Order: sequence, then C-alpha cells, then structure tokens
Amino acid sequence: MTRKIVIALDGMGGDMAPDMVVRGAGIARERHPDITFRLFGPATRLAELVKRVRWLSDCCEIVPAEDVVTNDDTPKQALRKRRTSSMGMALDAVADGQADCIVSAGNTGALLASATVMLRTLPGIRRPALSSLLPTVRGETVMLDLGANMQCDANNLAEFAVMGSVFARTVLGLDQPTVGLLNVGSEEGKGNETLRDAAAMLKAEGSPVQFHGFVEGNDIGAGAVDVVVTDGFTGNVALKAMEGTAKLYTGFVRDAFKTSTLAKLGYVLASGAWTKLRKRVDPRRYNGAVFLGVNGVCVKSHGGTDALGFAYAIGVAVDLVKYNLNDKVVGDLKKLREIVAAEVAEPVVAVAGGTGTP
Amino acid sequence: MTRKIVIALDGMGGDMAPDMVVRGAGIARERHPDITFRLFGPATRLAELVKRVRWLSDCCEIVPAEDVVTNDDTPKQALRKRRTSSMGMALDAVADGQADCIVSAGNTGALLASATVMLRTLPGIRRPALSSLLPTVRGETVMLDLGANMQCDANNLAEFAVMGSVFARTVLGLDQPTVGLLNVGSEEGKGNETLRDAAAMLKAEGSPVQFHGFVEGNDIGAGAVDVVVTDGFTGNVALKAMEGTAKLYTGFVRDAFKTSTLAKLGYVLASGAWTKLRKRVDPRRYNGAVFLGVNGVCVKSHGGTDALGFAYAIGVAVDLVKYNLNDKVVGDLKKLREIVAAEVAEPVVAVAGGTGTP
Repeated sequence: MTRKIVIALDGMGGDMAPDMVVRGAGIARERHPDITFRLFGPATRLAELVKRVRWLSDCCEIVPAEDVVTNDDTPKQALRKRRTSSMGMALDAVADGQADCIVSAGNTGALLASATVMLRTLPGIRRPALSSLLPTVRGETVMLDLGANMQCDANNLAEFAVMGSVFARTVLGLDQPTVGLLNVGSEEGKGNETLRDAAAMLKAEGSPVQFHGFVEGNDIGAGAVDVVVTDGFTGNVALKAMEGTAKLYTGFVRDAFKTSTLAKLGYVLASGAWTKLRKRVDPRRYNGAVFLGVNGVCVKSHGGTDALGFAYAIGVAVDLVKYNLNDKVVGDLKKLREIVAAEVAEPVVAVAGGTGTP
Repeated sequence: MTRKIVIALDGMGGDMAPDMVVRGAGIARERHPDITFRLFGPATRLAELVKRVRWLSDCCEIVPAEDVVTNDDTPKQALRKRRTSSMGMALDAVADGQADCIVSAGNTGALLASATVMLRTLPGIRRPALSSLLPTVRGETVMLDLGANMQCDANNLAEFAVMGSVFARTVLGLDQPTVGLLNVGSEEGKGNETLRDAAAMLKAEGSPVQFHGFVEGNDIGAGAVDVVVTDGFTGNVALKAMEGTAKLYTGFVRDAFKTSTLAKLGYVLASGAWTKLRKRVDPRRYNGAVFLGVNGVCVKSHGGTDALGFAYAIGVAVDLVKYNLNDKVVGDLKKLREIVAAEVAEPVVAVAGGTGTP
C-alpha cells in the first residue's frame, strides 16, 4: 500500500442522508483500511454523526458545505450551487486533485451534469455514460449506458463499448471481456443503422474490444456477454423493467408460500435457503453506478439505499481508483480511434444492411 | 351463440409444428365449442395428426399448402410464398373473409410484414403494433409495441395508445383502462420530443384514452397502468429483459433450495406452493401476441411454445373476434383524430420542455 485513497463524500445526497452516508462510510472503512474521507455537508451535524462511528475516528475530515442539491433541482440549478453545495464541493475536490473519487447518492441528473462540467470528459470521450454491474446466471455483467444519454450515435456506442470493456477488466478481473450491443435480434441486419455502424467499428480488425455481436434483452440475465452496451434511454428502461420483474417474482414466491399450512412449514424449514437467496439478489450488493468517461472517478449510489448499500458504492470507487481505470480507458480509446481512422482512409465493404425484418 | 368463429391456423409455424398446432387446436376447441378451424399445411401429414385428436373430429377443415415460411426467410421471401405457404394462405383466408382470424407460431417478421400487406391496416392506422398481456403485481397489463416498429413518431405512439386501450377493455374487461407512455422518468420534461408530443396528444381534452402520464420500466411489473405504450425497439428489449430476469430469479430460487437438507425438506413440503407459483408465472398463459392495427385479427404465438401455449394464443384470437376489437379501435381513433385536428386549428400552450435532466 503506497498511499491512502481519498474519497470525497456528498454528505447530503440520498433519501436517508446524512446519517446513511456516515454509517456507510464507517462500514466501507472497516473493509478498506487504506481509505480516508473528505465529507462535505453541514459541519456540526456531520461531526455529531461521525463521532458515533468508531471506524471513522481518524480518517474523516469534515468540510463545511451549507447548501444542498435537492431532488427537485434541475442540473442548471445544481450547477449554480457548485461552490456551496455538498455535491458541488465534493466534485470540486476531485477536480482539484484533493480527492481521488466522489461517491454521491444525490440527484442523478444533477450529479451527471455537474460531473461532466466540473471534471470534464476524458480525452477522446464525447459522452460519459452511466454503468453498473448486474447479476446474471453466470455471475455479473457490466451494462451501460443506464440513463445519461437519451440519444446516442454509433461513435458514442463504440466509446461505451471501450469504457465498459475496461470497467469489466477492472471490477470483474476478466482478461478479455466479451461485449454485446443490445438489439432486437442477434442477426446482423437487425435494429437500426446506428447499431449496425457501431457493430462495424467494434468488429474491425485490431479493435480493443472483444466484440460478440448483437445481444437481446434476455441475454442480459443469461450472462451471454460480460458487457452490454446500449443508449441511455433503452438502458434505463431495461434496467428498471428488470428491477420491476425481480420485485414481482419475489412477491409471487412470498405469496405462494402463504397458501397452505404445509407450504408455511416448508418456508420455515427453508429459512436458510431464503437468507441465501436474499443475499444473492440483494440490490445493495449491486449499488454503485459508475459515471464512466469523466476525468475522475464518480460513483452514483442509489438514492434510496441504506448504509450497507452506500458502503458497496464506496467499494466500487475504491476498486476503480486502485486499478487506474481511466488511464486504461484513454489507452484503449486511442486504439479504437486509430482503427476507425484507418478504415475511413481505406473503406471496407459496408456491413450487411437491414433485411426489412422488424 | 349466433355463428361459429372460423380460425385460420398456420399448420407449419413454430418449432414443434405441425404436431403442436394440431394438439393446441384440440385443447382450444375443448374450451371454446363455438370455434372451427381451417388448418393450412401438408394435407396428408395434417390429416394423420387431426385424426388422433378427438375434439377436432368435426370442426377442422384441412387446406393443402405445400410451402413453408422458415425462420430464415426474410419478409420479402415470405411474401413471395403468399399463395403457396401455410402462413400466406392462412392470412389470405382472413383477407378473403373465409376466416375470422389467424393464429401462427411462425417467423415473426414474416408474419407481421405479410399481415400488413395482405390484410392492410385499419382506417387511420399508419403502423400496426405487436401487443401482449404481461403479469403484474396487480394482475395483467397490456404492452405495445413489442417489436413491429423500430422507430415511432408521436402519432404512431398515440395510435398505439388507442389500440392498447381498446385491447385492455376487450381482454381485461376494464371500463377505463389507464395508459402510460414508457419513459426514463415520470416528470413531464423527461425523455425526448417524440414522447412529449405523444403525451400532449393523449392528455388533450376529450381524448378517448385515460392517459396516466409517463411511466418507468419498473412500473410495468408494478402494474402502475393497464396499458404501457412504447416503440418497438424499446418494447422488445424491455420484454426480453424481463423474461431474462424471470428466468434468472427462478434459477436463484431453485439453487437456494438445494443448499441444505432442511431446505430440500422445506421444498418438498411446499410442493403445492411451487405448483401454484409455476402456474402463475407460466409463460404459456401469456402466449399470444396480438398484431393490432391490421384489418383482421392476427395472433402471433411464441415460436417455441407447446400445444397448451398455442391453445392460449387461440383463446386470445377468439376473445378479440367476439368483442369486435377492430370496430372499437376505428371508432376511438376517429375521436383522437378530431381532437388533434382541433388542437392544430387552435394551438394550446406547448408542453413543458426538457429540463436537461437525463
């Protein structure tokens, strides 16, 4: 361990902030002794909370920030508070090099817009993207964009593929993560021109990405690829649709076990199994969406999370800082650019067009 | 019961056709004594199969069709076989008025394209849409488009809302089904211009649709609205993503109960609960996507379904024919057109624009 990782925390972001933030920091610190915090928010109130958490006694500097970005604030309103709000000041600490990363459970739109403006994007990245790990049959899959960009062109999608691929190498420890473009079918002609153009870039010779091809919605849960790439509209809808289904099925299972005395008895006997199941699908384990492509590590925690979930989000930030994610992204992007530039100079045969199949 | 409903069956559509089609027809006929079939496909082979199913002895006319639309056929190739294939000839029977509806488990793209050309669209409908019922916490929800139209404008979405609303009244027996537009947030400024324009049309005074507003992916499983409207790309991805999650969770539950002897015992005791659960989430119960907007009733069964699932798809077709779905769609669309025309004549205040929030 060379030096401590400094984490800027938005003390007032999240439905249960600031209490949840402080306790989450305590849990994370217990797991990662090599981290320290710069905690932004109302000083007196935060000091009170920090005092109660043993793990934070010697590693949490409170930086007074009197303003708060609320959930109703537009990105513009949030940006106006950048010098005074807990979110803005925490981002500023990363921009200034006073912290290695920021973790916030605050207003998503405000955080993404502020991070883009204040941290700027990495060289070669036109649009940062929101990314997260999702549970699958085979383990875990990286998915992006989950809602930062409503419309994306082929270049954006290709950049997402590079960023997602590096992210998977970093957090999943994979050598050659496979990348799929989310579409309505796996055949080459499916979808729209944007998707077909992005596919052509990604499968070009020398591409830094192990491109699998098009994948469909059900391939996400099946773990067909390590990285699923899509635009922010589709990604956000699909992610939430999957969350809704998970909730629905949990309810169905619970209902089924209430229907008879035998079933209730079975439920009690299987309580160990339930605990394991609950742990496995615990959404807190997947908390911590990474805003990839900004020049700095920015992790967005779910707004409704508790301390344990927030600690997981901090853990994601720690991983990314340790593995120098952004340097690797910049390197791989350069490779992709060179290939695309070479292809423009010497055009290859166009990708097979649409077959007209919807 | 005035007269029998005549159902045209694509005898060769589906992975397990024609056996599955014939046995599915038998199950459907047992449930609906007021239906008869015109079964298209290889005559000798079909006659062999029909002979084995008691319920079909007096209600199944075999119409020889020697050609087959395969899963590899493009819509164009399928259309070329319209006079000779089981799918094309079954559609033709509906177009000619020799059958009230068609049920096919064949190639989706081919069926949608052929149905659009051969049946044509209803007056006022620019684009037909694929629609289905999905299970929710509150019961069932209609969702469309599930993959017929990759790109949709505001008019298309508004038409889908009208069709989905009539569909929900018909198959769910609701007086005033609520309709939501799928988006990345429920606030007015969210999403893109297409969605905001469609919302403006649907919430106009006198709209034939009970418009709830924007809904998010998780609202589908929560049953927040009776009808979820989206473009075919997003709908297809979301639907399949939800299917993938359902599969994932089923696997998680199964795994959890294998972990200890007590859990296994609990599993056995709760076997009644499992049976109930399996029934409730049985995808066959939700088989039968309706191609709304064509001038005729066209139901697409899942290609991999078995006889029971195919029987459910036939049941959907029977319901739609009985309730004159298409007449109601035409009536409600006329209402929407009048409102939109009136609004163009006297423009209302524009809908609140985007806030810039992703």
